[in-house]
Amino acid sequence: MVTVNENFLKLKTGYLFPEISRRVRSYKAKNPGARIISLGIGDVTQPLAPAIIEAMRKAIDDMGIEAGFHGYGPEQGYNFLIDAIIENDFNSRGIDLTNDEVFISDGAKCDIGNIQEVFGLDNVIAIQDPVYPVYVDSNVMAGRTGRADENGCYDRIVYMPCVAENSFLPELPKGSVDIIYLCLPNNPTGSVATKDILSRWVDFARNERAVIFFDAAYEAFITDPGIPHSIYEIDGAKEVAIEFRSFSKTAGFTGIRCAFTVVPKQVKAYTTDGTAVEVNSLWNRRHSTKFNGASYISQVGATAVYSPEGKEQIHRIIDVYMANAAEIRESLTRLGFKVYGGVNAPYIWMKTPDGLTSWDFFDRLLTKANVVGTPGVGFGSAGEGYFRLTAFAKPAEVREAIERFAAV
Amino acid sequence: MVTVNENFLKLKTGYLFPEISRRVRSYKAKNPGARIISLGIGDVTQPLAPAIIEAMRKAIDDMGIEAGFHGYGPEQGYNFLIDAIIENDFNSRGIDLTNDEVFISDGAKCDIGNIQEVFGLDNVIAIQDPVYPVYVDSNVMAGRTGRADENGCYDRIVYMPCVAENSFLPELPKGSVDIIYLCLPNNPTGSVATKDILSRWVDFARNERAVIFFDAAYEAFITDPGIPHSIYEIDGAKEVAIEFRSFSKTAGFTGIRCAFTVVPKQVKAYTTDGTAVEVNSLWNRRHSTKFNGASYISQVGATAVYSPEGKEQIHRIIDVYMANAAEIRESLTRLGFKVYGGVNAPYIWMKTPDGLTSWDFFDRLLTKANVVGTPGVGFGSAGEGYFRLTAFAKPAEVREAIERFAAV
Repeated sequence: MVTVNENFLKLKTGYLFPEISRRVRSYKAKNPGARIISLGIGDVTQPLAPAIIEAMRKAIDDMGIEAGFHGYGPEQGYNFLIDAIIENDFNSRGIDLTNDEVFISDGAKCDIGNIQEVFGLDNVIAIQDPVYPVYVDSNVMAGRTGRADENGCYDRIVYMPCVAENSFLPELPKGSVDIIYLCLPNNPTGSVATKDILSRWVDFARNERAVIFFDAAYEAFITDPGIPHSIYEIDGAKEVAIEFRSFSKTAGFTGIRCAFTVVPKQVKAYTTDGTAVEVNSLWNRRHSTKFNGASYISQVGATAVYSPEGKEQIHRIIDVYMANAAEIRESLTRLGFKVYGGVNAPYIWMKTPDGLTSWDFFDRLLTKANVVGTPGVGFGSAGEGYFRLTAFAKPAEVREAIERFAAV
Repeated sequence: MVTVNENFLKLKTGYLFPEISRRVRSYKAKNPGARIISLGIGDVTQPLAPAIIEAMRKAIDDMGIEAGFHGYGPEQGYNFLIDAIIENDFNSRGIDLTNDEVFISDGAKCDIGNIQEVFGLDNVIAIQDPVYPVYVDSNVMAGRTGRADENGCYDRIVYMPCVAENSFLPELPKGSVDIIYLCLPNNPTGSVATKDILSRWVDFARNERAVIFFDAAYEAFITDPGIPHSIYEIDGAKEVAIEFRSFSKTAGFTGIRCAFTVVPKQVKAYTTDGTAVEVNSLWNRRHSTKFNGASYISQVGATAVYSPEGKEQIHRIIDVYMANAAEIRESLTRLGFKVYGGVNAPYIWMKTPDGLTSWDFFDRLLTKANVVGTPGVGFGSAGEGYFRLTAFAKPAEVREAIERFAAV
């Protein structure tokens, strides 16, 4: 008799975004005339930069002729893309990496969900709260947690609350933890960490022989020159940190699918008898066995992100989003709301007014202003009483959403 | 202290294709003038069909304008592709499926590697031997096996030998098994199963409450009208079978990345207390949590596979490969070799001459004829004394390889 992985049955059923869709659909059914503006799901809206379009068009044409056809590529990605990444994203910041430390994939969500596979089930994981749900759910599925309590908090996970009182930056755990998920610039709070703060995390991980999973999917939105874009800007980080990057938000690749993960050779995990094992070679084995490389077209497109024209065009697109962020942040502040983020991140995190719960504020905003955002509690119990707005909408929609906010 | 998943350390290090590459490189270094023809790795060589190129070019252009831009799609894939799949691949054979039973992905290798995650670690798996290594390795990594013996056979896996004596079709297991991997048309042996034979497997799985993972990646190469293309052509299969399909070999998508997996709602797995759980909803949860949809461009390209022009163009490409297969099969038979497959599959499976081991024959063919194939033993211990040739090379190369074969 075939058995099920019973860990899946521990998962809380109501994933955040389906529940939002359900409420929006239900409202629309009752109010068919309503014109709803979404500042909810974090998906880009600007078309791809012309340099990327041009490169991908050329790649497609190549695939139609014998001399240009590309079949299976290396599972780890093409060196033309890896070289561009290392030069532009890392060497430019004083970080050396070898080609076999960078793994191209079809998305950071996959890599972040899959990376836990190469680690033991006995590791204790620590996560920021609120947090991107994939960190938690992938560990629940693997069996690294117990059951959830009535707040949706799983046994055996160390939750690190990120609230206004600590500037939405987690404190170092008191007890022993083995794997630490850090997302900076943060989704959903928009908070960032200075070099000093990141150094404390790297030192902590080195002392504990822990590993940091550093999710840097939003590094392209950093505007403050003092904020590190990569954790490897911190001394010693290469011994303890795996970094996840994505072209999704940086270059509008949410529909194209390309991302990468950096696993330095120095990062080690241990057998029960204390032998150190190189995580890079385990991840390489996982990647080669269960993945067949990202699309050639997507990799050619991602390489164009680093061309002079590509860089300039992408900057202009990011400027559009960050102008949205500034408008949301400043307007809501003027309206008397407590607002955070939106300076080095495309996310604005606000305190709900009048002590409303996240979902009550969601419903009020939906029904009174026809604006959709994301309830903070959907990212974890420490997000209760907060609300996320994203800067990825079209500028005209952002302006109208703000006017409606002001009216209610 | 962070621990490693020690199951990874059970994996045999020498993965087949890297070892082949190593021997070829070493030979080339000593014989820089040698012109080597590869009938080894199963990768396509013909350029993409014009209908696919045209569709993808249009998709790229859409991504460059606001009105045509596509961000995140559904994790399960776009309905335009799912509809085309159900109509053409299944309805046309009398099989009904609903849209939420078909999951689009970026590759069958990923799906086949990941599907085991939703099942318990206590399941006993049965595999054909020789076999596609991903079936085994993904289960080793998950911890569903013991260690490997000196032949590379892992404890707790039921190996089903496929040799000339049983026409390379496995016999039903004597003991109890829970998950059965079947690849038909088979890689590497090229064998196929009739409806009668598949019915026996479906009945067996229903009696045992087991699940069949049916890898149909090569169904497009079936030429015999009596051979089923889908396991769902068998009555009752929807209760016990998950089917994996790919555009990789069918339409030359190895560099484009698109595939799909069918998980009928009737397929169940059980908790330890005997409660039946729908596998479809678990796979949907896995897919939504750790995957973000296949590339929009790839999905548009895959849809063009089902257009009238696409179908016709793809047929012509498959005809090229199958003409190669016929040429290899017939020539080698004339030369006195024992040759199997190559009629309903792009793989030719031959007995090595003179009682040579698979690797000895590999070395002889490489050094005497400068032709590269794949040692049968690399697919499992029952493949010892066999050798795989693929039909994916260019026709001129196939002809030359055959001449060299004849000369040695």
